[in-house]
Amino acid sequence: MTLIGVDWGSSNLRAYRFAADGAVIDRRESPRGAARLARAEFPDVLRETLDGWLEADTLVVLAGMVGARAGWHEAPYLPCPADPAGLAAAALRVDDAPARCFIVPGLSARTAAGVANVMRGEETQILGSGLSDGTIVLPGTHSKWARVEGGRITGFSTVMTGELYALLRTQSLLGQLAEGDEPDEAAFTLGAQRALDNPAGPLPLLFSARADVLLGSLAPTAVASYLSGLLIGGEVAAMRDAANDGLVLICNAALAARYRVALALAGVSDVRVVDGADAVAEGLWRIGELLK
Amino acid sequence: MTLIGVDWGSSNLRAYRFAADGAVIDRRESPRGAARLARAEFPDVLRETLDGWLEADTLVVLAGMVGARAGWHEAPYLPCPADPAGLAAAALRVDDAPARCFIVPGLSARTAAGVANVMRGEETQILGSGLSDGTIVLPGTHSKWARVEGGRITGFSTVMTGELYALLRTQSLLGQLAEGDEPDEAAFTLGAQRALDNPAGPLPLLFSARADVLLGSLAPTAVASYLSGLLIGGEVAAMRDAANDGLVLICNAALAARYRVALALAGVSDVRVVDGADAVAEGLWRIGELLK
Repeated sequence: MTLIGVDWGSSNLRAYRFAADGAVIDRRESPRGAARLARAEFPDVLRETLDGWLEADTLVVLAGMVGARAGWHEAPYLPCPADPAGLAAAALRVDDAPARCFIVPGLSARTAAGVANVMRGEETQILGSGLSDGTIVLPGTHSKWARVEGGRITGFSTVMTGELYALLRTQSLLGQLAEGDEPDEAAFTLGAQRALDNPAGPLPLLFSARADVLLGSLAPTAVASYLSGLLIGGEVAAMRDAANDGLVLICNAALAARYRVALALAGVSDVRVVDGADAVAEGLWRIGELLK
Repeated sequence: MTLIGVDWGSSNLRAYRFAADGAVIDRRESPRGAARLARAEFPDVLRETLDGWLEADTLVVLAGMVGARAGWHEAPYLPCPADPAGLAAAALRVDDAPARCFIVPGLSARTAAGVANVMRGEETQILGSGLSDGTIVLPGTHSKWARVEGGRITGFSTVMTGELYALLRTQSLLGQLAEGDEPDEAAFTLGAQRALDNPAGPLPLLFSARADVLLGSLAPTAVASYLSGLLIGGEVAAMRDAANDGLVLICNAALAARYRVALALAGVSDVRVVDGADAVAEGLWRIGELLK
């Protein structure tokens, strides 16, 4: 039986063809993300994307927004704690696919105070990162901070760092004084340090990305990095109790470098970085093995 | 000598004509805000707005964004601590006005850690509120928390609550699941309580305005008020050390009601509310008296 994994997010789709030992032997990418498709388009997009890969006994595993309410078929959130066997058992069988096909469910969690969280796609990356005990952080539009204990994802929180950054950089009064987006390491570090030093969090600091420019103490070209530092530093400060040594970061190298700086300022230097695409491929293969 | 005060903000202009005892005997409003005018248009707009009010010895005092770099004439920020006499002494004489005319400067401040803050217009409202010792809060797009001691404004912080709310409500993924903006008191209180209960601040809570809807534990019609509660509660939580009893709120009645709820949840119930338009008129008159 051959195995194919598809990371089908909102804005694009990445397909992986696996060897029997889990090695990726071929990969394809398409801009036909789940948020851009009508329900009836999914079978044809999948068939075209996997053209030439499908055999009689191929198993296809899908993860990501393809399983959202507005995706192909809704795979309801599985409540934490959850392990690979639980995710495989809750995977949704898709009948109108060009092969035997399952959608991995997302996960839900509630804090002790009852605050809700959901993820969809990240659960597969966490599985693919090896599920080692401790904290696993997936920085991004909606950063996830997950806790893993004994091979299970026991809970997680979300910080909207990436989306807040984009809104403040492009739509807010702060962005009006910013010039360009060239990385400025000193400005990033200043912002992160200020956010970490402020027990009240970064909210009373954001406006300084404008005020410091008006008073001549911050260059307009430094605003973007300073703002990024305030928000990533603020994320690390807010989640500091979860930021233990041995922390795993799942993301690309550029984002990992920024989080490493902020984590080091918070005293966390034992950080392992796993590439996001590698993690999702590995996770899709692991779940596929359980569904064979 | 007759006195006229003008609160000339970014989006509109409010003019007040005073009796000798400071009572407002006439008022006018115009949508010709400072952000909508080219520099050369200001004299004519002022002349038209004050048509029939100007006499040979009239003194006109302007406050707000009219004094910003992109306004009529830049009145540089006066550093805190600042008192009414200092503001009057630093007021900028305008030569191309249809009467003897001054622009009140804004204020700047730095925290002990060097974080910059600026205000423009609010300093006049704070003066108009009576400058009583303690904390004076001006909720809004960019909420100001000012400290007053011995008749001087000694420093202040800014929290971008109103702008963040607007961005998240109308431009973010959170807003997509929201239905309408009808006030929902229970949802507001839930959000404010959660933000106040969370020592890490509201950043790890914002996403629950989406997740709680997806999991069926929050009505789409409650999202706007819940989000407002998270942000106003988060503002109060971040500034809790400054939120002493005897706090003065300068704003309209609707906003005051929301802040009263969040402040009460934080244990601050001795709150005096001053209407924002009354405060600015009173402040303009006080500065005018010093400039006569």
